[in-house]
Amino acid sequence: MELAEFREPDQPGFTRRTFSEPYQRSRAWVKELMEAAGLQVRTDPTGNLIGELQGEAPELSQIAVGSHTDTVAGGGRFDGMVGVIGAIEVARLIRQGGQRLRHPLLVADFLGEEPNRFGLSCLGSRAVAGQLSQGHLLRPDESGETLISALLERGSRPADLSEGLWQPERLHCYLELHIEQGSRLQRAGIALGVVTAIAGIHRAVITVSGRPDHAGTTAMNERRDALAGAAEVVLLVERLAREQGEGGSGVGTVGRLEVSPGASNVVPGEARAWAEFRSIEPAWVQDRHLALEAVVAELAARRDLGVSIDWVSAEPPVACSEGVRQAIQEALEGLGQPSLELPSGASHDAAHVAHLCPMGMIFIPSRDGRSHCPEEWTEPEEVALGVAALLATVLRLDRRDTV
Amino acid sequence: MELAEFREPDQPGFTRRTFSEPYQRSRAWVKELMEAAGLQVRTDPTGNLIGELQGEAPELSQIAVGSHTDTVAGGGRFDGMVGVIGAIEVARLIRQGGQRLRHPLLVADFLGEEPNRFGLSCLGSRAVAGQLSQGHLLRPDESGETLISALLERGSRPADLSEGLWQPERLHCYLELHIEQGSRLQRAGIALGVVTAIAGIHRAVITVSGRPDHAGTTAMNERRDALAGAAEVVLLVERLAREQGEGGSGVGTVGRLEVSPGASNVVPGEARAWAEFRSIEPAWVQDRHLALEAVVAELAARRDLGVSIDWVSAEPPVACSEGVRQAIQEALEGLGQPSLELPSGASHDAAHVAHLCPMGMIFIPSRDGRSHCPEEWTEPEEVALGVAALLATVLRLDRRDTV
Repeated sequence: MELAEFREPDQPGFTRRTFSEPYQRSRAWVKELMEAAGLQVRTDPTGNLIGELQGEAPELSQIAVGSHTDTVAGGGRFDGMVGVIGAIEVARLIRQGGQRLRHPLLVADFLGEEPNRFGLSCLGSRAVAGQLSQGHLLRPDESGETLISALLERGSRPADLSEGLWQPERLHCYLELHIEQGSRLQRAGIALGVVTAIAGIHRAVITVSGRPDHAGTTAMNERRDALAGAAEVVLLVERLAREQGEGGSGVGTVGRLEVSPGASNVVPGEARAWAEFRSIEPAWVQDRHLALEAVVAELAARRDLGVSIDWVSAEPPVACSEGVRQAIQEALEGLGQPSLELPSGASHDAAHVAHLCPMGMIFIPSRDGRSHCPEEWTEPEEVALGVAALLATVLRLDRRDTV
Repeated sequence: MELAEFREPDQPGFTRRTFSEPYQRSRAWVKELMEAAGLQVRTDPTGNLIGELQGEAPELSQIAVGSHTDTVAGGGRFDGMVGVIGAIEVARLIRQGGQRLRHPLLVADFLGEEPNRFGLSCLGSRAVAGQLSQGHLLRPDESGETLISALLERGSRPADLSEGLWQPERLHCYLELHIEQGSRLQRAGIALGVVTAIAGIHRAVITVSGRPDHAGTTAMNERRDALAGAAEVVLLVERLAREQGEGGSGVGTVGRLEVSPGASNVVPGEARAWAEFRSIEPAWVQDRHLALEAVVAELAARRDLGVSIDWVSAEPPVACSEGVRQAIQEALEGLGQPSLELPSGASHDAAHVAHLCPMGMIFIPSRDGRSHCPEEWTEPEEVALGVAALLATVLRLDRRDTV
């Protein structure tokens, strides 16, 4: 709740976007919290906040735990935050209890996990995993500013990015505590979820080109109405996403649609739809991708419209490590807690760190599945249970020589 | 082409919107053109430019001729302009020919015919016809400014609006030369059209309310997707407009659609569609209006969405006067020109002035039916023929004691 006070005062909900002034201020607060927990804190070249707790055996690989503290516009108070503050609390409890881990513990508050104005998510976790490319860094926002200049302006040192790379051989495993952002846990009446995999996402910008005409004088059969075509695209994405096998968890969404010229008395000449498909099954996403291209081609021919599909990203699904999942299960059993295995429809920093080391995630419930909105809520007891599970898992993984 | 030079320098096409600086400047140019043609010019309380040519018999009622010189955003160089400059040219030709009309001639450049930021069209012609209500004057734009304050700022005197009312008993008839903004004349290979009626327009703002949810974690069958609902509305409006009888000329359009929150990773929580139906047949428009309400109610129930339809305007069709149509026909026969009778799908200042006196319109071709776009075009010879037809019709109506 204290962290949530850092937000845009004039915007609805809890808004603390990457590169904004409230976000910048909030990270000084996070840094202090890390220091108070006894962590040695540094800001890496990208702008990730990294707190370290020394282990008994400095030569052992590190256990990394983290998440993010930025929000979407009009977002909530839990998405990402429970993972960072939970990880700091784990470090604090270990120190307070007079214990010492065998492995060094890294607590990470990754820079900007939510999509930013450069259209890129997971800035910080991509960077440590070596997945932030030159193409990413040179991406412009709508005003023409590039991501790299925004990073430089906020004190990051992207020229030294290689300094910030995490070395796979130095990592034992990565753990992330996060809210579910769906309602499976609530419906099952279970407080803790063990994530099986993080969904892959294929995102496309679909541009429908027709012809702008006077809406009063152009007969229905003479029109090339881009919005009517885009409306079909919206319903096609929905229909394709509803086609799934037994237990399928794939989803498809058009979340954004822009119409030009956008006057009530002009037949729309162009419409642009932002569409995505997500699933933990790579074949399902790939099938939707191909099916969308086929049905859209048919639509373009039938309506005499130009339709282009630009696939702006195609992230494959990421499976959680068997070893980490087993450690989480054992930890929950040790706490006497039932658990539910479930996939993550949302993407997370964990999906990028998984390129480096064994990765696992623990989910706690989201009331009514609501997320990315001010109503996002998890009960304090549920957060506490999540932190206890995270601690128990860290202790269990610390005893292992390999995950 | 000279008038078209008054435009927003940084915007595409020819943009000279009501209340803008280019529009304000352009009207001084129109005023000079009127004065050069020998008209006595005044600006009425609303901001209409009125040029008058005395008749032989000052006690006779006035022949009014006019149109508008504002544009839509990204518009063209003919819509409205040919009617104003054509009317000034008619006055100039009459004076130059040493003729004198029996009736006084009024040449009107009506203020702001295109929809403005207050959502109102035909400001000036509504005002002279006594159809600009207090409700209209108090309409706010998106920043909260009211229409009346915008009028005052630009030198209009809306407190004295009653001074500017045209008196039906002082009016002989009203004539307007305009581009067709459709392609019937071109397809028929005929250069001059006699308008039978101006279409009625029913406009609605349709608000679809669902629930914003995380696009990655909310299963397809748990969503209340406002954009998917709005996409159905777009296609329903199109389907209803395509249902028409023999020779039907009705049209239906969704020209504008706004989606909120409008992020690619959030299921849309709200969508707003601006829809309209137009026809010269009142029953057809009324039927679409009722049918849309019925199908939208079904859609709302099926998708568990809130859908509200706010009918923001419902202008009935306006028939052109039999007497004026006959005078135009006779004038065209006198010029040895074939003509085509056709309805106007677009609304015009003439629809408002028709409340006061017999009204008629002459159409000239629009290349490929294009209008409200920079490609809007009519050949100079076609414009000249239109002006000749307007002059011949004025002369013919001037000889009549009643229309």
